[in-house]
Amino acid sequence: MDLALLPQERLRAGIEQFYARHMQLLDTGRAEEWARTFTEDGTFALPGRPEPSRGRAELAEGASRAYAAQRAAGETHRHWHGMLDITTQDDGTVRVRCYALVVLTPRGGDPRLHRACVCEDVLVDEGGEWKVRARVVTRDGA
Amino acid sequence: MDLALLPQERLRAGIEQFYARHMQLLDTGRAEEWARTFTEDGTFALPGRPEPSRGRAELAEGASRAYAAQRAAGETHRHWHGMLDITTQDDGTVRVRCYALVVLTPRGGDPRLHRACVCEDVLVDEGGEWKVRARVVTRDGA
Amino acid sequence: MDLALLPQERLRAGIEQFYARHMQLLDTGRAEEWARTFTEDGTFALPGRPEPSRGRAELAEGASRAYAAQRAAGETHRHWHGMLDITTQDDGTVRVRCYALVVLTPRGGDPRLHRACVCEDVLVDEGGEWKVRARVVTRDGA
Repeated sequence: MDLALLPQERLRAGIEQFYARHMQLLDTGRAEEWARTFTEDGTFALPGRPEPSRGRAELAEGASRAYAAQRAAGETHRHWHGMLDITTQDDGTVRVRCYALVVLTPRGGDPRLHRACVCEDVLVDEGGEWKVRARVVTRDGA
Repeated sequence: MDLALLPQERLRAGIEQFYARHMQLLDTGRAEEWARTFTEDGTFALPGRPEPSRGRAELAEGASRAYAAQRAAGETHRHWHGMLDITTQDDGTVRVRCYALVVLTPRGGDPRLHRACVCEDVLVDEGGEWKVRARVVTRDGA
Repeated sequence: MDLALLPQERLRAGIEQFYARHMQLLDTGRAEEWARTFTEDGTFALPGRPEPSRGRAELAEGASRAYAAQRAAGETHRHWHGMLDITTQDDGTVRVRCYALVVLTPRGGDPRLHRACVCEDVLVDEGGEWKVRARVVTRDGA
């Protein structure tokens, strides 16, 4: 897809739909499907980790482990992306800088804000589907 | 409207505008107007209720009662929809699975998360306006 | 730009992008750049203030002072706009009524909801860029 010809509203709608599905996969434990929303060698840098996760196998394993820990703790986590600042790059990639919240609800309890973060993604188009090539998350308060 | 011909960005923009108005009607106590954003026989299944609400009269009554209770308690409730996963169906309906938060602010106090939910809607086009035909809400932590 | 000819999806995408950048400027302390997202004589009425702020110099000074206070207190503030009800006016302006959250994270602590507000904006197009001509914010719980 030629980004220069893509109307901004189509770009934005596609990316919002991408994130909605991406996060719903993560939050329902579909770790393998979620990992396939990254490029084959996609990276994910989280705060407090010496190295980013790299590649779908490692991404899926991390997501699967996190989901199992949430289930064991009786917690539901929901990832919200918002305030998407979207910019197209000359190399055909798209940069998104947005806010991310994690809402945590314990079994039988009230929801609370678990994390407030800034998420910076490089997205690429692969055959008409957006994929995350590189993600850097920074946590507010760290 | 022929959904097959509707660009995804127009579909998404229309649905986002629909939800914004829909929720602002609910949160300002305009229960009759809110009920008219459902189809005539629209249903709304909430957790902990044996049967869904059905039809505009019942929907309006429920919304009106809830709003009166919030007023009596000195609370402001705000419904946020986010992370909209939108899919068109072959039968001309649209399915939306999204996250929903209720933010509650007591008079003179600080806001807090009151509910974190997943909302699954079947939307239909009636003369150029979206209407909820069926809604199922599940509450995180239940 | 002739609003009557602007497809709703382009209007909405432009306004969402505007708010994303607008709020990210505010939350990263770029007060001068943020003030330039208002018209030259733009106004901002906040609860508990006898008069609205008026004009970019005053807006920038207020934003700069607020950011310095947050830094001094070790706090990160994130402004989220959501549930945008967008209506075009016959005079070529756009009205937006939306919800606004401020998420506050103290250094080393957990995020919490600091404010829940309703934000009512009059936006105008200046040479292809949206600007806030007038903003009125009301705080839930006040």
